[in-house]
Amino acid sequence: MKLDQFDGYKYIDGGVTASAGYTANGLNCGLNPDKNKNDLGLVYCEKTCNAAAVYTTNKVKGAPIIVTKKHLDANGGKARAIIVNSKNANTMNANGIEIADGMCKLVADGMNIPEDEVIVASTGVIGEVMSIDPFKNSIDELIKGLSVDGHTRVTNAIMTTDTVPKEVAVEFTLGGKTCHLGGMAKGSGMINPNMATTLNFITSDVAISSEMIAKALSDIVKVTYNCLTIDGDTSTNDMVSVMANGLAGNDEITSADEDYETFKQALYIVMSQMTRMLAKDGEGATKLIECEVKKAPSLDTAIKIAKSVVGSSLFKCAIFGEDANWGRIACAIGYTDADFSIDVIDCDLASDAGVVPVCRDGFGVPFSEEEAAKVLKEDEIKVIITMNQGEYDAKAWGCDLTYDYVKINGDYRS
Amino acid sequence: MKLDQFDGYKYIDGGVTASAGYTANGLNCGLNPDKNKNDLGLVYCEKTCNAAAVYTTNKVKGAPIIVTKKHLDANGGKARAIIVNSKNANTMNANGIEIADGMCKLVADGMNIPEDEVIVASTGVIGEVMSIDPFKNSIDELIKGLSVDGHTRVTNAIMTTDTVPKEVAVEFTLGGKTCHLGGMAKGSGMINPNMATTLNFITSDVAISSEMIAKALSDIVKVTYNCLTIDGDTSTNDMVSVMANGLAGNDEITSADEDYETFKQALYIVMSQMTRMLAKDGEGATKLIECEVKKAPSLDTAIKIAKSVVGSSLFKCAIFGEDANWGRIACAIGYTDADFSIDVIDCDLASDAGVVPVCRDGFGVPFSEEEAAKVLKEDEIKVIITMNQGEYDAKAWGCDLTYDYVKINGDYRS
Repeated sequence: MKLDQFDGYKYIDGGVTASAGYTANGLNCGLNPDKNKNDLGLVYCEKTCNAAAVYTTNKVKGAPIIVTKKHLDANGGKARAIIVNSKNANTMNANGIEIADGMCKLVADGMNIPEDEVIVASTGVIGEVMSIDPFKNSIDELIKGLSVDGHTRVTNAIMTTDTVPKEVAVEFTLGGKTCHLGGMAKGSGMINPNMATTLNFITSDVAISSEMIAKALSDIVKVTYNCLTIDGDTSTNDMVSVMANGLAGNDEITSADEDYETFKQALYIVMSQMTRMLAKDGEGATKLIECEVKKAPSLDTAIKIAKSVVGSSLFKCAIFGEDANWGRIACAIGYTDADFSIDVIDCDLASDAGVVPVCRDGFGVPFSEEEAAKVLKEDEIKVIITMNQGEYDAKAWGCDLTYDYVKINGDYRS
Repeated sequence: MKLDQFDGYKYIDGGVTASAGYTANGLNCGLNPDKNKNDLGLVYCEKTCNAAAVYTTNKVKGAPIIVTKKHLDANGGKARAIIVNSKNANTMNANGIEIADGMCKLVADGMNIPEDEVIVASTGVIGEVMSIDPFKNSIDELIKGLSVDGHTRVTNAIMTTDTVPKEVAVEFTLGGKTCHLGGMAKGSGMINPNMATTLNFITSDVAISSEMIAKALSDIVKVTYNCLTIDGDTSTNDMVSVMANGLAGNDEITSADEDYETFKQALYIVMSQMTRMLAKDGEGATKLIECEVKKAPSLDTAIKIAKSVVGSSLFKCAIFGEDANWGRIACAIGYTDADFSIDVIDCDLASDAGVVPVCRDGFGVPFSEEEAAKVLKEDEIKVIITMNQGEYDAKAWGCDLTYDYVKINGDYRS
């Protein structure tokens, strides 16, 4: 995965602990029978952060979603720690709230911080009763092992069917102060637009109010995570949280000024790169699909069309098969629920290997199958749709639909 | 596939030619390189029928959709013949309308009937230019071979990735007259709710006005074809047409009286059974999934929830893997865009092998994995969701998501 370059921002290592003041840890507490796979993680900040989060829009919400929202709503957006487990989603089980509360209490007691400054998240199987014991038995070791290099251990703890860990961090300056913003994410199934897709935790040392974090997060999630689809299934446990502790020493951002734009751009870089990583590592995926819609009559229409194309099962299969069956793109454009005309559109298939025009003015154009095969052989495929009826552009990201998606999901619980 | 039994209706053979007055034929005109596979079909009625049709809601519409709609709109719902080809969808190609018009003209000239009494339909690859020549060269043979037993040949002609032909017909009485209604359908990919899914042609010898056919079709399509999803992709070429020639000799149905209800019930039987056949023969499918939603607050909500469950890629994979991962049902219920509460719902998995309760009052309940495995081994799986918050019931149909779906669609064009 090549990271896009942005002026004034430098990619750095470190993920959730790239910013000043954060430590992390992860370990196996026994939920996952594979002892080499972490299933419990903790992120801790040495001082209280301003924070904001977005949550799944699914009516079925995991208990951790309910508890985290209660905390951040009650304390006006303050957080100091994140506890997260994989293997059990803590959703639709009778003791869910009790467990989520209990996880926060363990962290609060162990670190001597208020319970409502703990963000809690879970991912895994839905509808299975949990015990607090694995967490209780591991909390001391988890806290003791907190360190700056623990970002890799906590990132490992949130992985489920992910095949690669997903971390991005950037360095930039605000009023002469060196700032950082970084995060980690997990995919890779039950992922669909129109929510705060998947589990994502972003940390920063910028000084910024909770309100302005919430505003930036709401804007950026719309053009990044919400433009991602793996399988059309909106999870019950999705969450993106952003914490910022102010240790960079910049003047606190409290309005939509230039500094805010600089912070928002950092958030866009980290979240858009992680979105691409999530797409590329979608369950069973062999290829990243990026759909760019240009010259649409509105931003909303551009986003909807781009999502529709990357969400089409048929087109996803065609990309897996490296088959230039662009009619499926046309079909997916056509069933998009938005107001536009289709008889002026152009469409190209592209990758690092070249660009193949397949449609002009709403009709198919002859193309070289050989050339198309070369383009589709690459592992990052781009669909460029020029609507020719406005000035709005948008992108969406997805992946191909493969045998392995079926295999992974045919027997996920065992 | 066991056919549901309905009092007063008897299943009979014959599909589109089961009703009096209809003949049919199908042959290979050269579009399909496999000479044993028909690719061109014709249905003909000895007298002009009253007719109505519903069409895809995709903004990209195949040329045959545009031409058929123009015909039936212009002549107030009259039809005498159907010409249909597979292999090329005649969609988004520059000469599309010319070809669709040309196909109708060939039939009109050959049979000496008005051009606007021909229904035309195509299915296959989108965006490829067509030639009229294969049709021109075959029309005489096609017409010459029309016969009552030709229903099997025309049904073969509309099959694409279908593995079995799909025909249903019933016999019933109206005012002492023996009546018939039968049809054929093709699946089996690019199928999704909210349109007149797939290609379907229904014929009858009942006497009924075009207006009442249209009314019955619109009601029945809502609870049958529009409750079917294979892959979430709404095709550009979907159409259901109903023709009725009055040869049964009943008093013409011109209002929503008792006879109309009898006709509508026949239409429901044929269309619901074909919907189940289409679901069971979805691309790559090994299992039929039927989701029954009970006690919902509205019919619309019941339909939406049922469709959401059968449309979930994750749940479809779980059923393929015979894995009782009911959390994915909960997840799909939860992201349904409708107004309901989730904390009182019950859910059961069922089949001919038994019933396994998995959720009560919104929480998972312990169940025997052994029992669940036995239930899921069957090839027709039922999900029963009792919402406990109203009096509306609905069903939706789908199939599992399998390796073969990916295989079929990874390389469909070749």
